[in-house]
Amino acid sequence: MDRRQEIIMAATKSFSLFGFKATTMDQIARIANVGKGTIYTFFENKDILFQEIVLRMISEMKSEAMSVLKEDAPFQENAHHALMKMLEFRETHQLFAKIIDEEKELRTPAVQQVLVQIEQEIVSYIKLKIEKAISKGEIRQVNSELVAFLLFKAYLAFVVDWEATHSEPLSEKSITELFRDTIFKSLLI
Amino acid sequence: MDRRQEIIMAATKSFSLFGFKATTMDQIARIANVGKGTIYTFFENKDILFQEIVLRMISEMKSEAMSVLKEDAPFQENAHHALMKMLEFRETHQLFAKIIDEEKELRTPAVQQVLVQIEQEIVSYIKLKIEKAISKGEIRQVNSELVAFLLFKAYLAFVVDWEATHSEPLSEKSITELFRDTIFKSLLI
Repeated sequence: MDRRQEIIMAATKSFSLFGFKATTMDQIARIANVGKGTIYTFFENKDILFQEIVLRMISEMKSEAMSVLKEDAPFQENAHHALMKMLEFRETHQLFAKIIDEEKELRTPAVQQVLVQIEQEIVSYIKLKIEKAISKGEIRQVNSELVAFLLFKAYLAFVVDWEATHSEPLSEKSITELFRDTIFKSLLI
Repeated sequence: MDRRQEIIMAATKSFSLFGFKATTMDQIARIANVGKGTIYTFFENKDILFQEIVLRMISEMKSEAMSVLKEDAPFQENAHHALMKMLEFRETHQLFAKIIDEEKELRTPAVQQVLVQIEQEIVSYIKLKIEKAISKGEIRQVNSELVAFLLFKAYLAFVVDWEATHSEPLSEKSITELFRDTIFKSLLI
């Protein structure tokens, strides 16, 4: 493994365990077992290193979302599974879970920006899928950006926010049926 | 005006200007121009006083929402105007705006609870309206609680969250059309 890769792995570990704010370049150097100067030959500062790691995380999330897509499945089914997968990532991916906590507790601007960036990536991804479904004649002509934002925010509300105000999480079956009977239903031609 | 009312007005003023955490019973007593002991004859502690004021705010918000309802208008039109009115309240009502800021900056538990309570009140209110529309045969039989939550969260996303990630706010016309063509459309019989 090359040294750049070693530094990225060490930084991922440190950001995942301690968050963005509490991670220092010294710490990353220690974990990677390289001199601090070496890190600077690859990454100008902590922000740039963090950005690199976040981009990798986003691409990992997209791969996972893509892995549940079925070529022949209807739009609604693929959209549902991809959205659930990407939202699940908030809990299953150690770095993602850590930065969500960090944002809640510390409101670090760099972390807030990253969360906005991830949201924009997810919405763009859904937007593309909507446009593909429109061009295939599977769903009607809609404003793909607004519908993508609506789908993402509505799923986020039921998968994440619901639990904050209700004693029981909603079953995936209830979520599937609700979206089938409301937003997805309205998109059909 | 009786003394209880004077204390409530003074407390509303103090919570609106300084937030929940920075308000003390001493301060309220000074603003109301009564002795601190007098406050305790009416309200056991700051939490109970705050709760009383929040209940008044919620009832004010509901009155405003009701004032835009038209007896003969279709469900979708009334729901849209009531939701916009209640969300507008976040900005136009000084105490509401203050506690939203306080929650963001300080994460005071009492304030978090109040925001959850307000959300639940709004969702229950929409739920009742949905059930009325179902019984009138205006919209189809749906899970009123889930659809109320969906409508509230989706409106919140477009009216409040949209601006955090986009340079321009969405026009009310775009919001109206989007909801008409998606969620409301799916509810029609």
